Amino acid sequence: MLSLYHYEPSANSMKPLLCLAEKGLDYESHYIDLHNFEQHSPEFVAVNPNGQVPVLIHDGAVINESTVINEYLDEVFPDVRLVPENPVERAQMRIWSKFVDEYFCPALSRIGWSLLIPKIAARLKAGELEEALKKIPLEEQRQKWLTAATESFTEEELAEARRKVTVSIERMEGILAERKWLAGNEYSLADVNSYSMVVAVPRLVPEAMSEEKTPHSMAWLDKMNARPAVQAALATARQA
Amino acid sequence: MLSLYHYEPSANSMKPLLCLAEKGLDYESHYIDLHNFEQHSPEFVAVNPNGQVPVLIHDGAVINESTVINEYLDEVFPDVRLVPENPVERAQMRIWSKFVDEYFCPALSRIGWSLLIPKIAARLKAGELEEALKKIPLEEQRQKWLTAATESFTEEELAEARRKVTVSIERMEGILAERKWLAGNEYSLADVNSYSMVVAVPRLVPEAMSEEKTPHSMAWLDKMNARPAVQAALATARQA
Repeated sequence: MLSLYHYEPSANSMKPLLCLAEKGLDYESHYIDLHNFEQHSPEFVAVNPNGQVPVLIHDGAVINESTVINEYLDEVFPDVRLVPENPVERAQMRIWSKFVDEYFCPALSRIGWSLLIPKIAARLKAGELEEALKKIPLEEQRQKWLTAATESFTEEELAEARRKVTVSIERMEGILAERKWLAGNEYSLADVNSYSMVVAVPRLVPEAMSEEKTPHSMAWLDKMNARPAVQAALATARQA
Repeated sequence: MLSLYHYEPSANSMKPLLCLAEKGLDYESHYIDLHNFEQHSPEFVAVNPNGQVPVLIHDGAVINESTVINEYLDEVFPDVRLVPENPVERAQMRIWSKFVDEYFCPALSRIGWSLLIPKIAARLKAGELEEALKKIPLEEQRQKWLTAATESFTEEELAEARRKVTVSIERMEGILAERKWLAGNEYSLADVNSYSMVVAVPRLVPEAMSEEKTPHSMAWLDKMNARPAVQAALATARQA
């Protein structure tokens, strides 16, 4: 049996939710409320010592890292293939997914955090933030929370994050001017792994993405929004 | 035919060099001299617009990103398998390789750069550094060069990098206390992708790794050093 620990269908949680929906796989849903710090609770840290969602459990095996979860799902449940047969397209799928994980997502995440975390912190009582921070297992995550919640990111840091998001969408636009999907002519995990990030860009970094400036990326986003699996993933997760 | 653009058998260049040696594959070697900025030359940027080694060329397909190159080589030349058959071990291989790319390698690289780049910059004539920096295609790389060459990293940044290297080796030690190799009971790309980083730790961050503190990691390093393919990769590349 499959279990997935996840948050809302956004950011990294959306990646396996969408993969599961594309493959039509049933799973036991464990909703982890990040606004209430459930990802740092002893119960969840026992599942993933990093205190991060998503986490997949399959026949007792615990797999974290959303990009790795999706390749695992494709190998173990190959009826609907989301990894191209062609090894070069497969490499392109992995190079793009790696770029999303290492460059695009961290930049976009910084902007999202700068808006979200102060709101979460503002509704905590005195001392509650300190208590919450103490439970974060990864030092880097603790620092990121502390910065976002107290001193906030600097305008220079946010400008750099916006620049990186713009570079990311420019790179996407260049690929989609030449290929139908992000890894080649087939829909693949490169697309699955990008949706939740790209869909947030018009709202968070409007100067990076528009019909005029990045028509191929906008058309890709329209095609993604129209996919039944995208709609299903969004709906299923909200019910969870 | 296979061609590999690479630097010395260290850091990311060593990863495909070792993979090729394990598989006994012949390839055309293109040595790129990072000390003379050949990675930023117009000829090489035409091959990889990022201006970074290694790059694999196979039947006209250009594949960058050392971790992706190695999975590609395993899929296209499967006679000697370096990706486990078991999907869970395969996921563990990818999770570890991702950790090396995103956490361990950047931290170790900062320490290496802090020692190396000032030496490269010191032997340049006035104006040559500025000219060299202008040719770097990636903004992030240009900033890293500029910081390393002129103002240097701060002691706080270097201490944080040493902390992350220590965390990385502790994580490795925890894995190797339970498994024979980094992804499970089989030697895999998780090991191939780690060698060039781990072998540098006793010299660059001696407090992170020792017979007393991390015996499993030291034993792993001994086993790696004894592999004929490791010796072959080191020797072949130096002749290039």
